[in-house]
Amino acid sequence: MTQGGEDVKLLGAWASPFVIRIRIALNLKGVDYEFLEEVFGVKSELLLESNPVYKKIPVLIHDGKPVCESMIIVQYIDEVWATKGPAILSADPYDRALHRFWAYYVDDKWFPSVSAISRAQTEEAKAEAVEQVFAGLKLLEEAFQKCGKGKGFFGGDTIGYVDIALGCFLAWLKATEKMTGIKFFDEAKTPLLAQWVERFCADVAVRGVMPETDKMVEFAKMLQTKFKAAASAK
Amino acid sequence: MTQGGEDVKLLGAWASPFVIRIRIALNLKGVDYEFLEEVFGVKSELLLESNPVYKKIPVLIHDGKPVCESMIIVQYIDEVWATKGPAILSADPYDRALHRFWAYYVDDKWFPSVSAISRAQTEEAKAEAVEQVFAGLKLLEEAFQKCGKGKGFFGGDTIGYVDIALGCFLAWLKATEKMTGIKFFDEAKTPLLAQWVERFCADVAVRGVMPETDKMVEFAKMLQTKFKAAASAK
Repeated sequence: MTQGGEDVKLLGAWASPFVIRIRIALNLKGVDYEFLEEVFGVKSELLLESNPVYKKIPVLIHDGKPVCESMIIVQYIDEVWATKGPAILSADPYDRALHRFWAYYVDDKWFPSVSAISRAQTEEAKAEAVEQVFAGLKLLEEAFQKCGKGKGFFGGDTIGYVDIALGCFLAWLKATEKMTGIKFFDEAKTPLLAQWVERFCADVAVRGVMPETDKMVEFAKMLQTKFKAAASAK
Repeated sequence: MTQGGEDVKLLGAWASPFVIRIRIALNLKGVDYEFLEEVFGVKSELLLESNPVYKKIPVLIHDGKPVCESMIIVQYIDEVWATKGPAILSADPYDRALHRFWAYYVDDKWFPSVSAISRAQTEEAKAEAVEQVFAGLKLLEEAFQKCGKGKGFFGGDTIGYVDIALGCFLAWLKATEKMTGIKFFDEAKTPLLAQWVERFCADVAVRGVMPETDKMVEFAKMLQTKFKAAASAK
Protein backbone atom coordinates (compact mmCIF):
# COMPACT_ATOMS: atom_id res chain seq x y z
CA MET A 1 0.00 0.00 0.00
CA THR A 2 1.25 3.44 -0.80
CA GLN A 3 0.87 6.35 1.57
CA GLY A 4 2.01 9.85 0.76
CA GLY A 5 4.29 8.35 -1.88
CA GLU A 6 5.68 5.85 0.60
CA ASP A 7 5.83 2.16 -0.07
CA VAL A 8 5.87 0.06 3.10
CA LYS A 9 5.96 -3.74 2.94
CA LEU A 10 6.35 -6.22 5.76
CA LEU A 11 7.60 -9.75 5.15
CA GLY A 12 6.18 -11.83 7.96
CA ALA A 13 3.87 -14.53 9.28
CA TRP A 14 0.81 -14.09 11.52
CA ALA A 15 2.09 -16.33 14.34
CA SER A 16 5.60 -14.90 14.73
CA PRO A 17 6.04 -12.78 17.90
CA PHE A 18 8.87 -10.92 16.19
CA VAL A 19 6.58 -9.96 13.31
CA ILE A 20 3.85 -8.93 15.76
CA ARG A 21 6.34 -6.37 17.16
CA ILE A 22 6.53 -4.62 13.81
CA ARG A 23 2.78 -4.69 13.23
CA ILE A 24 2.14 -3.10 16.64
CA ALA A 25 4.75 -0.39 15.98
CA LEU A 26 3.27 0.40 12.55
CA ASN A 27 -0.24 0.51 14.06
CA LEU A 28 0.91 2.87 16.83
CA LYS A 29 2.29 5.23 14.20
CA GLY A 30 -0.74 4.81 11.93
CA VAL A 31 1.39 3.65 8.99
CA ASP A 32 -0.37 1.63 6.28
CA TYR A 33 1.60 -1.33 4.97
CA GLU A 34 1.34 -4.33 2.73
CA PHE A 35 1.65 -7.56 4.72
CA LEU A 36 3.42 -10.18 2.63
CA GLU A 37 2.91 -13.53 4.37
CA GLU A 38 5.72 -16.02 4.02
CA VAL A 39 4.60 -19.63 3.61
CA PHE A 40 5.61 -21.69 6.67
CA GLY A 41 8.78 -23.71 6.00
CA VAL A 42 9.53 -21.98 2.68
CA LYS A 43 11.66 -18.85 2.20
CA SER A 44 10.61 -16.53 -0.62
CA GLU A 45 13.09 -15.08 -3.10
CA LEU A 46 12.26 -11.62 -1.75
CA LEU A 47 13.10 -12.72 1.81
CA LEU A 48 16.43 -14.26 0.77
CA GLU A 49 17.35 -11.12 -1.17
CA SER A 50 16.22 -8.75 1.58
CA ASN A 51 17.86 -10.49 4.54
CA PRO A 52 20.74 -12.51 3.05
CA VAL A 53 22.62 -12.74 6.38
CA TYR A 54 19.91 -14.20 8.64
CA LYS A 55 17.27 -15.22 6.03
CA LYS A 56 14.59 -14.57 8.67
CA ILE A 57 11.34 -12.67 9.09
CA PRO A 58 10.45 -9.95 9.90
CA VAL A 59 11.86 -7.70 7.21
CA LEU A 60 10.45 -4.22 6.66
CA ILE A 61 10.89 -2.93 3.13
CA HIS A 62 10.51 0.84 3.03
CA ASP A 63 10.67 2.44 -0.41
CA GLY A 64 12.58 -0.63 -1.62
CA LYS A 65 15.15 -0.63 1.19
CA PRO A 66 15.13 -3.58 3.60
CA VAL A 67 15.49 -3.25 7.39
CA CYS A 68 16.11 -6.42 9.44
CA GLU A 69 16.01 -7.56 13.09
CA SER A 70 12.78 -6.85 14.94
CA MET A 71 13.88 -4.36 17.62
CA ILE A 72 16.07 -2.53 15.08
CA ILE A 73 12.99 -2.24 12.84
CA VAL A 74 10.93 -0.92 15.78
CA GLN A 75 13.53 1.81 16.38
CA TYR A 76 13.60 2.57 12.65
CA ILE A 77 9.80 3.02 12.61
CA ASP A 78 10.00 5.28 15.67
CA GLU A 79 12.68 7.42 14.01
CA VAL A 80 11.22 7.63 10.48
CA TRP A 81 7.68 8.43 11.66
CA ALA A 82 8.88 10.45 14.66
CA THR A 83 6.08 13.00 14.39
CA LYS A 84 3.30 10.44 13.79
CA GLY A 85 1.63 8.84 16.82
CA PRO A 86 3.25 8.49 20.24
CA ALA A 87 7.02 8.12 20.68
CA ILE A 88 7.97 4.45 21.13
CA LEU A 89 11.23 5.39 22.91
CA SER A 90 11.32 8.40 25.25
CA ALA A 91 13.46 11.41 24.27
CA ASP A 92 15.45 11.16 27.52
CA PRO A 93 18.80 9.35 27.07
CA TYR A 94 18.67 7.64 30.45
CA ASP A 95 15.13 6.35 29.90
CA ARG A 96 16.12 5.18 26.42
CA ALA A 97 19.06 3.22 27.88
CA LEU A 98 16.84 1.72 30.59
CA HIS A 99 14.17 0.64 28.12
CA ARG A 100 16.77 -0.73 25.69
CA PHE A 101 18.27 -2.73 28.56
CA TRP A 102 14.97 -4.39 29.50
CA ALA A 103 14.03 -5.13 25.90
CA TYR A 104 17.48 -6.73 25.51
CA TYR A 105 16.91 -8.76 28.68
CA VAL A 106 13.60 -10.08 27.32
CA ASP A 107 15.29 -11.40 24.15
CA ASP A 108 18.56 -12.48 25.74
CA LYS A 109 17.37 -14.18 28.92
CA TRP A 110 13.65 -14.23 29.51
CA PHE A 111 12.17 -15.55 26.27
CA PRO A 112 14.83 -18.30 25.95
CA SER A 113 13.65 -19.61 29.34
CA VAL A 114 10.04 -19.65 28.05
CA SER A 115 11.15 -21.63 24.97
CA ALA A 116 13.07 -24.02 27.23
CA ILE A 117 9.77 -25.13 28.82
CA SER A 118 8.46 -26.73 25.64
CA ARG A 119 11.89 -28.07 24.64
CA ALA A 120 12.57 -29.69 28.06
CA GLN A 121 13.21 -33.45 27.80
CA THR A 122 12.82 -34.20 31.53
CA GLU A 123 10.44 -33.02 34.26
CA GLU A 124 13.47 -31.64 36.11
CA ALA A 125 14.56 -29.50 33.14
CA LYS A 126 11.00 -28.30 32.70
CA ALA A 127 10.69 -27.31 36.38
CA GLU A 128 13.98 -25.41 36.15
CA ALA A 129 12.82 -23.51 33.05
CA VAL A 130 9.50 -22.63 34.72
CA GLU A 131 11.38 -21.34 37.75
CA GLN A 132 13.56 -19.14 35.52
CA VAL A 133 10.52 -17.74 33.73
CA PHE A 134 8.98 -16.72 37.06
CA ALA A 135 12.25 -15.24 38.34
CA GLY A 136 12.37 -13.20 35.11
CA LEU A 137 8.78 -12.03 35.54
CA LYS A 138 9.62 -10.84 39.05
CA LEU A 139 12.47 -8.74 37.60
CA LEU A 140 10.13 -7.46 34.87
CA GLU A 141 7.52 -6.48 37.48
CA GLU A 142 10.19 -4.26 39.10
CA ALA A 143 11.26 -2.96 35.69
CA PHE A 144 7.62 -2.06 34.95
CA GLN A 145 7.61 0.34 37.88
CA LYS A 146 10.98 1.87 36.96
CA CYS A 147 10.24 2.23 33.24
CA GLY A 148 6.58 3.20 33.43
CA LYS A 149 6.86 5.43 36.50
CA GLY A 150 3.58 4.22 37.94
CA LYS A 151 1.59 4.60 34.71
CA GLY A 152 -0.20 1.96 32.64
CA PHE A 153 2.60 0.80 30.35
CA PHE A 154 6.37 0.28 30.42
CA GLY A 155 6.31 3.27 28.03
CA GLY A 156 4.31 5.40 30.50
CA ASP A 157 0.88 6.51 29.26
CA THR A 158 1.23 4.70 25.95
CA ILE A 159 2.75 1.49 24.58
CA GLY A 160 6.53 1.81 24.29
CA TYR A 161 9.66 -0.15 23.43
CA VAL A 162 9.57 -2.67 26.33
CA ASP A 163 5.81 -3.15 25.99
CA ILE A 164 6.36 -4.21 22.38
CA ALA A 165 9.40 -6.39 23.20
CA LEU A 166 7.54 -8.34 25.91
CA GLY A 167 3.94 -8.02 24.77
CA CYS A 168 4.57 -9.66 21.40
CA PHE A 169 4.90 -13.01 23.21
CA LEU A 170 1.51 -12.89 24.94
CA ALA A 171 -0.34 -15.06 22.40
CA TRP A 172 2.39 -17.72 22.70
CA LEU A 173 2.23 -17.51 26.48
CA LYS A 174 -1.55 -17.81 26.60
CA ALA A 175 -1.33 -20.86 24.33
CA THR A 176 1.37 -22.36 26.56
CA GLU A 177 -0.81 -21.67 29.63
CA LYS A 178 -3.69 -23.53 27.98
CA MET A 179 -1.50 -26.47 26.99
CA THR A 180 0.50 -26.86 30.22
CA GLY A 181 -1.73 -25.43 32.95
CA ILE A 182 1.07 -23.07 34.07
CA LYS A 183 -0.28 -19.59 34.84
CA PHE A 184 2.39 -17.06 33.88
CA PHE A 185 0.72 -13.81 34.87
CA ASP A 186 -0.61 -14.25 38.36
CA GLU A 187 -2.34 -11.41 40.23
CA ALA A 188 -0.76 -12.65 43.46
CA LYS A 189 2.83 -12.95 42.18
CA THR A 190 3.10 -10.07 39.69
CA PRO A 191 -0.02 -7.92 40.08
CA LEU A 192 1.23 -5.03 37.93
CA LEU A 193 2.12 -7.30 35.00
CA ALA A 194 -1.16 -9.21 35.30
CA GLN A 195 -3.08 -5.95 34.84
CA TRP A 196 -0.70 -4.79 32.13
CA VAL A 197 -1.45 -7.95 30.07
CA GLU A 198 -5.16 -7.05 29.94
CA ARG A 199 -4.44 -3.40 29.14
CA PHE A 200 -1.90 -4.27 26.43
CA CYS A 201 -4.08 -6.84 24.64
CA ALA A 202 -7.08 -4.46 24.69
CA ASP A 203 -5.14 -1.62 23.03
CA VAL A 204 -6.33 -0.67 19.57
CA ALA A 205 -2.78 -1.04 18.14
CA VAL A 206 -2.56 -4.63 19.45
CA ARG A 207 -6.06 -6.12 19.20
CA GLY A 208 -6.09 -6.80 15.49
CA VAL A 209 -2.63 -8.40 15.31
CA MET A 210 -2.49 -10.53 18.49
CA PRO A 211 -3.55 -14.05 17.47
CA GLU A 212 -6.43 -15.74 19.29
CA THR A 213 -5.33 -18.27 21.88
CA ASP A 214 -7.16 -21.23 20.29
CA LYS A 215 -5.65 -20.52 16.87
CA MET A 216 -2.23 -20.33 18.50
CA VAL A 217 -2.76 -23.64 20.37
CA GLU A 218 -3.64 -25.29 17.06
CA PHE A 219 -0.50 -23.84 15.45
CA ALA A 220 1.70 -24.93 18.40
CA LYS A 221 0.33 -28.49 18.16
CA MET A 222 1.07 -28.55 14.43
CA LEU A 223 4.66 -27.43 15.20
CA GLN A 224 5.07 -30.12 17.87
CA THR A 225 3.90 -32.81 15.45
CA LYS A 226 6.35 -31.59 12.81
CA PHE A 227 9.29 -31.50 15.26
CA LYS A 228 8.49 -34.98 16.60
CA ALA A 229 8.31 -36.36 13.05
CA ALA A 230 11.61 -34.67 12.18
CA ALA A 231 13.26 -36.00 15.37
CA SER A 232 12.08 -39.58 14.83
CA ALA A 233 13.27 -39.47 11.19
CA LYS A 234 16.85 -38.79 12.36
CA MET B 1 36.59 12.94 37.79
CA THR B 2 34.10 15.74 37.62
CA GLN B 3 33.52 17.80 34.51
CA GLY B 4 31.10 20.71 34.37
CA GLY B 5 29.38 19.29 37.43
CA GLU B 6 29.18 15.84 35.86
CA ASP B 7 30.37 12.70 37.54
CA VAL B 8 31.32 9.93 35.12
CA LYS B 9 32.64 6.58 36.36
CA LEU B 10 33.37 3.46 34.37
CA LEU B 11 33.49 0.04 36.03
CA GLY B 12 35.76 -2.08 33.87
CA ALA B 13 38.96 -3.98 33.22
CA TRP B 14 41.75 -3.07 30.78
CA ALA B 15 41.58 -6.33 28.79
CA SER B 16 37.79 -6.49 28.20
CA PRO B 17 36.79 -5.68 24.60
CA PHE B 18 33.36 -4.61 25.86
CA VAL B 19 34.96 -2.10 28.22
CA ILE B 20 37.24 -0.86 25.42
CA ARG B 21 34.06 0.08 23.50
CA ILE B 22 33.03 2.51 26.23
CA ARG B 23 36.51 4.01 26.58
CA ILE B 24 36.69 4.70 22.83
CA ALA B 25 33.23 6.30 22.84
CA LEU B 26 34.11 8.53 25.82
CA ASN B 27 37.40 9.49 24.15
CA LEU B 28 35.62 10.37 20.89
CA LYS B 29 33.32 12.70 22.82
CA GLY B 30 36.15 14.09 24.94
CA VAL B 31 34.45 13.10 28.21
CA ASP B 32 36.68 12.74 31.28
CA TYR B 33 35.89 9.76 33.48
CA GLU B 34 37.14 7.86 36.46
CA PHE B 35 38.17 4.32 35.49
CA LEU B 36 37.37 1.92 38.32
CA GLU B 37 39.19 -1.33 37.59
CA GLU B 38 37.50 -4.49 38.79
CA VAL B 39 39.87 -7.15 40.15
CA PHE B 40 39.87 -10.21 37.83
CA GLY B 41 37.68 -12.98 39.25
CA VAL B 42 36.13 -10.78 41.95
CA LYS B 43 32.97 -8.68 41.68
CA SER B 44 32.92 -5.44 43.66
CA GLU B 45 29.93 -4.38 45.75
CA LEU B 46 29.50 -1.41 43.43
CA LEU B 47 29.32 -3.70 40.38
CA LEU B 48 26.76 -6.01 42.00
CA GLU B 49 24.62 -3.02 43.01
CA SER B 50 24.94 -1.29 39.65
CA ASN B 51 24.24 -4.28 37.41
CA PRO B 52 22.23 -6.71 39.56
CA VAL B 53 20.77 -8.56 36.56
CA TYR B 54 23.95 -9.49 34.66
CA LYS B 55 26.63 -8.67 37.28
CA LYS B 56 29.01 -7.84 34.43
CA ILE B 57 31.32 -5.06 33.31
CA PRO B 58 31.19 -2.55 31.72
CA VAL B 59 28.89 -0.32 33.72
CA LEU B 60 28.87 3.44 33.18
CA ILE B 61 27.78 5.41 36.22
CA HIS B 62 26.72 8.91 35.22
CA ASP B 63 25.78 11.23 38.06
CA GLY B 64 25.11 8.17 40.21
CA LYS B 65 22.86 6.41 37.67
CA PRO B 66 24.13 3.11 36.19
CA VAL B 67 23.88 2.20 32.49
CA CYS B 68 24.61 -1.42 31.46
CA GLU B 69 25.33 -3.41 28.27
CA SER B 70 28.16 -2.11 26.13
CA MET B 71 26.37 -1.07 22.92
CA ILE B 72 23.51 0.43 24.95
CA ILE B 73 26.12 2.47 26.83
CA VAL B 74 27.70 3.59 23.54
CA GLN B 75 24.31 4.86 22.33
CA TYR B 76 23.75 6.56 25.69
CA ILE B 77 27.09 8.38 25.39
CA ASP B 78 26.24 9.43 21.83
CA GLU B 79 22.86 10.81 22.96
CA VAL B 80 23.94 12.53 26.20
CA TRP B 81 26.97 14.22 24.65
CA ALA B 82 25.28 14.71 21.27
CA THR B 83 26.91 18.07 20.64
CA LYS B 84 30.42 17.03 21.80
CA GLY B 85 32.73 15.38 19.26
CA PRO B 86 31.56 13.48 16.17
CA ALA B 87 28.22 11.63 16.05
CA ILE B 88 28.73 7.91 16.71
CA LEU B 89 25.47 7.01 14.95
CA SER B 90 24.38 8.98 11.86
CA ALA B 91 21.23 11.11 12.06
CA ASP B 92 19.67 9.22 9.14
CA PRO B 93 17.20 6.50 10.27
CA TYR B 94 18.17 4.08 7.49
CA ASP B 95 21.89 4.43 8.20
CA ARG B 96 21.21 3.99 11.91
CA ALA B 97 19.31 0.74 11.24
CA LEU B 98 22.07 -0.51 8.93
CA HIS B 99 24.81 0.24 11.48
CA ARG B 100 22.79 -1.27 14.33
CA PHE B 101 22.30 -4.40 12.23
CA TRP B 102 26.02 -4.90 11.61
CA ALA B 103 26.97 -4.17 15.22
CA TYR B 104 24.36 -6.77 16.24
CA TYR B 105 25.83 -9.24 13.74
CA VAL B 106 29.31 -8.79 15.24
CA ASP B 107 28.06 -9.68 18.74
CA ASP B 108 25.52 -12.30 17.73
CA LYS B 109 27.44 -14.27 15.09
CA TRP B 110 30.93 -13.08 14.31
CA PHE B 111 32.62 -12.78 17.69
CA PRO B 112 31.15 -16.11 18.95
CA SER B 113 32.93 -17.79 16.00
CA VAL B 114 36.21 -16.11 17.04
CA SER B 115 35.76 -17.40 20.61
CA ALA B 116 35.00 -20.87 19.24
CA ILE B 117 38.55 -21.09 17.82
CA SER B 118 40.19 -21.10 21.25
CA ARG B 119 37.47 -23.28 22.77
CA ALA B 120 37.65 -25.93 20.02
CA GLN B 121 38.44 -29.42 21.37
CA THR B 122 39.28 -30.98 17.99
CA GLU B 123 41.18 -29.85 14.90
CA GLU B 124 37.97 -30.28 12.91
CA ALA B 125 35.99 -27.96 15.22
CA LYS B 126 38.82 -25.43 15.08
CA ALA B 127 38.93 -25.49 11.27
CA GLU B 128 35.17 -24.98 11.15
CA ALA B 129 35.36 -21.99 13.52
CA VAL B 130 38.19 -20.44 11.46
CA GLU B 131 36.12 -20.86 8.30
CA GLN B 132 33.17 -19.11 9.95
CA VAL B 133 35.37 -16.23 11.09
CA PHE B 134 36.60 -15.69 7.53
CA ALA B 135 33.08 -15.97 6.07
CA GLY B 136 32.05 -13.29 8.59
CA LEU B 137 34.96 -11.04 7.64
CA LYS B 138 33.90 -11.30 4.00
CA LEU B 139 30.42 -10.09 4.95
CA LEU B 140 31.94 -7.32 7.06
CA GLU B 141 34.15 -6.22 4.13
CA GLU B 142 30.95 -5.71 2.10
CA ALA B 143 29.28 -4.00 5.06
CA PHE B 144 32.27 -1.64 5.32
CA GLN B 145 31.54 -0.33 1.82
CA LYS B 146 27.80 0.02 2.46
CA CYS B 147 28.14 1.65 5.89
CA GLY B 148 31.18 3.81 5.22
CA LYS B 149 30.26 4.83 1.66
CA GLY B 150 33.84 4.57 0.45
CA LYS B 151 35.35 6.57 3.32
CA GLY B 152 37.88 5.48 5.96
CA PHE B 153 35.58 4.06 8.63
CA PHE B 154 32.29 2.18 8.92
CA GLY B 155 31.11 5.50 10.36
CA GLY B 156 32.30 7.46 7.30
CA ASP B 157 34.99 10.05 7.96
CA THR B 158 35.15 9.26 11.67
CA ILE B 159 34.87 6.25 13.97
CA GLY B 160 31.23 5.21 14.38
CA TYR B 161 29.02 2.56 15.91
CA VAL B 162 30.20 -0.46 13.87
CA ASP B 163 33.86 0.63 14.11
CA ILE B 164 33.52 0.51 17.90
CA ALA B 165 31.57 -2.80 17.89
CA LEU B 166 34.17 -4.59 15.76
CA GLY B 167 37.33 -2.66 16.56
CA CYS B 168 37.18 -3.37 20.28
CA PHE B 169 38.23 -6.95 19.51
CA LEU B 170 41.42 -6.07 17.63
CA ALA B 171 43.79 -6.59 20.57
CA TRP B 172 42.27 -10.05 21.18
CA LEU B 173 42.55 -10.87 17.50
CA LYS B 174 46.16 -9.74 17.26
CA ALA B 175 47.00 -11.89 20.31
CA THR B 176 45.17 -14.85 18.74
CA GLU B 177 47.11 -14.29 15.49
CA LYS B 178 50.37 -14.39 17.43
CA MET B 179 49.40 -17.53 19.33
CA THR B 180 47.87 -19.53 16.46
CA GLY B 181 49.55 -18.22 13.32
CA ILE B 182 46.14 -17.50 11.74
CA LYS B 183 46.13 -14.15 9.95
CA PHE B 184 42.65 -12.64 10.28
CA PHE B 185 43.04 -9.43 8.33
CA ASP B 186 44.62 -10.32 5.04
CA GLU B 187 45.27 -7.68 2.35
CA ALA B 188 44.44 -10.28 -0.31
CA LYS B 189 41.18 -11.52 1.21
CA THR B 190 39.72 -8.39 2.80
CA PRO B 191 41.80 -5.41 1.64
CA LEU B 192 39.46 -2.72 2.94
CA LEU B 193 39.32 -4.22 6.44
CA ALA B 194 43.10 -4.78 6.50
CA GLN B 195 43.62 -1.05 5.92
CA TRP B 196 40.84 -0.14 8.33
CA VAL B 197 42.59 -2.07 11.13
CA GLU B 198 45.68 0.16 10.80
CA ARG B 199 43.60 3.32 10.58
CA PHE B 200 41.43 2.39 13.56
CA CYS B 201 44.30 1.45 15.86
CA ALA B 202 46.20 4.64 14.99
CA ASP B 203 43.25 6.89 15.89
CA VAL B 204 43.80 9.15 18.87
CA ALA B 205 40.58 7.92 20.53
CA VAL B 206 41.77 4.30 20.31
CA ARG B 207 45.57 4.34 20.78
CA GLY B 208 45.65 4.80 24.54
CA VAL B 209 43.03 2.16 25.35
CA MET B 210 43.87 -0.66 22.92
CA PRO B 211 46.11 -3.10 24.83
CA GLU B 212 49.50 -4.02 23.39
CA THR B 213 49.57 -7.41 21.70
CA ASP B 214 52.30 -8.89 23.96
CA LYS B 215 50.46 -7.85 27.11
CA MET B 216 47.31 -9.43 25.69
CA VAL B 217 49.13 -12.67 24.83
CA GLU B 218 50.39 -12.88 28.40
CA PHE B 219 46.85 -12.31 29.70
CA ALA B 220 45.40 -14.93 27.31
CA LYS B 221 47.97 -17.49 28.48
CA MET B 222 47.09 -16.77 32.10
CA LEU B 223 43.40 -17.34 31.25
CA GLN B 224 44.17 -20.61 29.45
CA THR B 225 46.14 -21.89 32.47
CA LYS B 226 43.25 -20.99 34.79
CA PHE B 227 40.65 -22.68 32.56
CA LYS B 228 42.75 -25.83 32.21
CA ALA B 229 43.25 -26.00 35.98
CA ALA B 230 39.50 -25.51 36.52
CA ALA B 231 38.66 -28.18 33.92
CA SER B 232 41.07 -30.76 35.39
CA ALA B 233 39.72 -30.09 38.90
CA LYS B 234 36.22 -31.18 37.78
